[in-house]
Amino acid sequence: MTRILFSLLLMLSLTHAGENLASWNDGTSKKNIISYVTSVTDPKNKDFIPVADRIAVFDNDGTLWSEKPMYFFLYFTMDRIIDLAPQHPEWKTEEPFKSVLQKDIKGVMKSGMEGLTKLIMATHAGMTDEAFDDLVMDWIKTAKHPTKNVHYTELIFQPMLELLNYLRDNGFKTFIVSGGGIDFMRPWASEVYGMPSYQIIGSKLEVKYENKQIVRYPKLRFNDDKEDKPVGIHYHIGKRPVAAFGNSDGDFAMMEYTEANAKYKTLQLYVHHTDDKREVAYDRKSHVGKLDKGLDYAKAHDWTVVDMKKEWKVVYPFELKK
Amino acid sequence: MTRILFSLLLMLSLTHAGENLASWNDGTSKKNIISYVTSVTDPKNKDFIPVADRIAVFDNDGTLWSEKPMYFFLYFTMDRIIDLAPQHPEWKTEEPFKSVLQKDIKGVMKSGMEGLTKLIMATHAGMTDEAFDDLVMDWIKTAKHPTKNVHYTELIFQPMLELLNYLRDNGFKTFIVSGGGIDFMRPWASEVYGMPSYQIIGSKLEVKYENKQIVRYPKLRFNDDKEDKPVGIHYHIGKRPVAAFGNSDGDFAMMEYTEANAKYKTLQLYVHHTDDKREVAYDRKSHVGKLDKGLDYAKAHDWTVVDMKKEWKVVYPFELKK
Repeated sequence: MTRILFSLLLMLSLTHAGENLASWNDGTSKKNIISYVTSVTDPKNKDFIPVADRIAVFDNDGTLWSEKPMYFFLYFTMDRIIDLAPQHPEWKTEEPFKSVLQKDIKGVMKSGMEGLTKLIMATHAGMTDEAFDDLVMDWIKTAKHPTKNVHYTELIFQPMLELLNYLRDNGFKTFIVSGGGIDFMRPWASEVYGMPSYQIIGSKLEVKYENKQIVRYPKLRFNDDKEDKPVGIHYHIGKRPVAAFGNSDGDFAMMEYTEANAKYKTLQLYVHHTDDKREVAYDRKSHVGKLDKGLDYAKAHDWTVVDMKKEWKVVYPFELKK
Repeated sequence: MTRILFSLLLMLSLTHAGENLASWNDGTSKKNIISYVTSVTDPKNKDFIPVADRIAVFDNDGTLWSEKPMYFFLYFTMDRIIDLAPQHPEWKTEEPFKSVLQKDIKGVMKSGMEGLTKLIMATHAGMTDEAFDDLVMDWIKTAKHPTKNVHYTELIFQPMLELLNYLRDNGFKTFIVSGGGIDFMRPWASEVYGMPSYQIIGSKLEVKYENKQIVRYPKLRFNDDKEDKPVGIHYHIGKRPVAAFGNSDGDFAMMEYTEANAKYKTLQLYVHHTDDKREVAYDRKSHVGKLDKGLDYAKAHDWTVVDMKKEWKVVYPFELKK
C-alpha cells in the first residue's frame, strides 16, 4: 500500500517539476537544458526516457566546484604532509616532499604524476576507512582556499547545484564521475551536493579487509580519468548515461560515451571557464583542466558549452548573500 | 517546492510503513527482523539510524534465489558454450569444454575454479556491453531449470522479496553483493528484485573503452567473494552497512564487517537451507553454498538463522498461485 501511494505521489510530483535555474541567465545553455529535460520527461514525446534510464553523470573538479590554482584535494594532501612531517625527517631533503614543506607549488608540480602519486600514497595509506574520513572532515571544515580565503566547499558552483536539483526533480539519478579519489570526496560531497556516497565514483587506492576493517594500501587501483571514466561508469552504474557534464578533455570520453547512447536522446554540456574576474579564465593551454580537443568537438557536435561569464548570474553560493 | 513536498510525503509514508512479511511464519526470525526495523526507524529510540545510513546488503545465490544443483550463471555459461561450439572444434577434446558438451556436470566441477574461469572467459569476453546484455536477457526469458523445469527467475525466494520491500518501505537502501558477475546479474536482476543496476555489486571482468563501446576482456578483475565482499562494499557504497543477509561462509566477511559497525545497531541474517522437499537441504558439507564456520559463529553471536523449512510458508512466488 505504502509503495503504491508512494509511486502515485512520485508521478504527481514529477509532473509538476518546474525548473528553478535562477542563477542561469536566459541564453543558449539554459534553453538547451530545459528543452532537453522537457522533451525526455514527456511521455507523449518521441524522445521520452523512462525514469530508470535517466542517468546523468557529472565530473567534479572544474565542473561542480573550482579547481584552481590546483585541484583542492592536492591542498588537502599537502596539508597532511605538513602534519606528518615531524615523523618523517627524511622528507626535508626528498622530493616532492621537500617542495611541499617549502610551500613551493611549482616544485611540487614539477614532480609530475609520479610525485603526486608519492604524496597521495604517503598521506592516504596505512589507516582505516573511518580514521581517514575523520581527517578529511576535519580539514574540509577548517582549511581555507589560498587566494579566495573561504572554505573549499564554499567554492561550489551555484548554477550547477540548481542544475543537479532540476534534474533530480525530473526523475534523473545524478552521479559524480571524478578523477579525484573516492576517499577524499565521499565524506563531504554527499552532503554538499546532496549525492549519496554510492553515487560518487572516483579514483581508488588498493584496500584490504583486515581485522573487521577496510585498510588502505599505497597503490593506485583505478584512475578514474579519460578513457577510464566510461569504465568506471560501466562497473558502477551498469548503464550508459543519457546526460554528461564536464569541463575538460579528461571528461571527453565520458561525454562521447554518453553521446553514443543508441537508445536515447542525450545531452552533453561543457562548463567553459571564461570568467577571469569571479573565477579563473582558462581552457586550451591550462595544465589543470585543459579543454582543447573537447572544445572543438563540442562546437562541431552541437554540445552545450556554458560561457560562465555571460551565462551565470552568480558563480558561488556566497554571492547570493551579498 | 517539489522537494519539500516530497520530503514531507516521504516522512509520512515512512511513519506508516507497516510490515508485510506474509510468507514468514511467526517465529524467531520474523520477530528479530521486525524488532530490529522498528527500533532503528523510531526517532525516539536510542538505536535510531538516520535514513542516509540505512544500508542493507544481500548476497544473491542461495540468499535471494536458489543455487542448486549449480550456480545458475553456470547454466547460462554452459548453454553459451554449446551455442558457440560449432566455431570451436577444438573444444571437443579440450577440458573443461569437453565435459560441458557432453553435459557431464561432474566433469565440469572437477576442473575447479581454473576450469570455470576458462568457461566464463570463453563466453563473456570479446563483445560489447549491449550485445552481452541481449544474450543474457534472451537466455533468462527462455531457459529452464534442469530439475524444477521453470524459468530461473521463478526460483527467487518469496519471503526474501517481502523482506526487501519491507526494508525499502522503511527507508533502507538495499544492495546485492554477490560473487556472481555483474554482467550476468544486472540485465534481469534490476527488474526481478526491484533493484537498480547501480545497487548491484558483483564480480567483474576486465573491460576497456574502445570505439565508444565498453568491450570485455578475458581476465577477471575483481572476485566479489569472501574477504573481498567488504572491499566491494567499500568501493561501491562507501559506507559500512547496518544489515547483512547471506547464506554461506562466502558471506561471512560481509556480515562480520557489518556487525563491527561501531556507530549503529546491526542485523545479520543467514538463510539456512533446511528444506529438502520444497528446495534443497544443505549446509556444512556442501560444495556450493557451504555454511559451516558461519553457522557456528551465528549461533554464538545471536545472528538470525532462518530455518527455511519451519519459518517460510512458501519458498517460491509460484507457490502462491497454487
